[in-house]
Amino acid sequence: MPLLQISLRAGKPEAYRQAIFNSLYRAMREALNVPEDDQFMAITEHDAANFRYGNAYGVARSDDVVYIQITVFNTRTVEQKKALFRRIAELLGESPGVRPEDVFVNIVDAAKENWSVGHGLAQFA
Amino acid sequence: MPLLQISLRAGKPEAYRQAIFNSLYRAMREALNVPEDDQFMAITEHDAANFRYGNAYGVARSDDVVYIQITVFNTRTVEQKKALFRRIAELLGESPGVRPEDVFVNIVDAAKENWSVGHGLAQFA
Amino acid sequence: MPLLQISLRAGKPEAYRQAIFNSLYRAMREALNVPEDDQFMAITEHDAANFRYGNAYGVARSDDVVYIQITVFNTRTVEQKKALFRRIAELLGESPGVRPEDVFVNIVDAAKENWSVGHGLAQFA
Repeated sequence: MPLLQISLRAGKPEAYRQAIFNSLYRAMREALNVPEDDQFMAITEHDAANFRYGNAYGVARSDDVVYIQITVFNTRTVEQKKALFRRIAELLGESPGVRPEDVFVNIVDAAKENWSVGHGLAQFA
Repeated sequence: MPLLQISLRAGKPEAYRQAIFNSLYRAMREALNVPEDDQFMAITEHDAANFRYGNAYGVARSDDVVYIQITVFNTRTVEQKKALFRRIAELLGESPGVRPEDVFVNIVDAAKENWSVGHGLAQFA
Repeated sequence: MPLLQISLRAGKPEAYRQAIFNSLYRAMREALNVPEDDQFMAITEHDAANFRYGNAYGVARSDDVVYIQITVFNTRTVEQKKALFRRIAELLGESPGVRPEDVFVNIVDAAKENWSVGHGLAQFA
């Protein structure tokens, strides 16, 4: 039940964006062990004037930067988070071929009681 | 002062999207007792290629899935959160008629000092 | 490495939106002392039917409301947050000329281990 918000520059083909979804889902399966079909993600495409990135922290980013914000249970360990970052970069590198410099990920922690995945219930509280 | 970000597939009529805002506002009034006219929400519409959902957790979702991310004071109780989830599903079910399976809600907690609702002030710090 | 999501009504000129980025970056440099070129921001523009604001908390907002959600290290002090809010409102007031009533800011705290700013690494863990 992680909820993912992905922001990138507009103009990539549909197959490219589907590959982003597929690789993120696979990374969550492997690193976080999420259940099958636990895919809750949306991509927002931005014109150049609505998208800003810098080169801070010694990373040579390009127009292909992808911002990935993942809201997830606050029970995840540091090791799980590290594994998730690593697998996301690896898999996005394989498909659709995002450069590792262009993979920017941020995790937001949310308590188990903060999720309703349908029917108005707090399934994990 | 909850801040709401709503993501859904593109193509619903304007009245449908206004009804989502109205029902979410009413649910927050009832379950969280927010002040009158405490409405701070934006909807992002996504093409099919930019929107991904799965059927994890035994919920038969459809293309009408609505992702609702609510950032709110970290002082809300579990009971308030449960009431909010319940009322959101009920009211979105009444208007515009979202199936309970398609209501996906995530709460992000933010401290009182984390809000400025105008004038550059931290009104709740 | 704050990650910023900015939502506003569609239709503002490109220079207006660039000025928002510039002022937010400058405010973060001054109030949070972020490194040079630490700019990670995206603007989402919304049609009227997809954007809702109210006048709660005695603030007379207008269609020019800007929602700014800033995810940042959870190590920031209350004083830094207050300074950030103040500088954002001041600088957006100067350029592009947003009224102080229309500046709505929310901070989301994220632990140092929750960030990967490239290469699949957790640079700050």
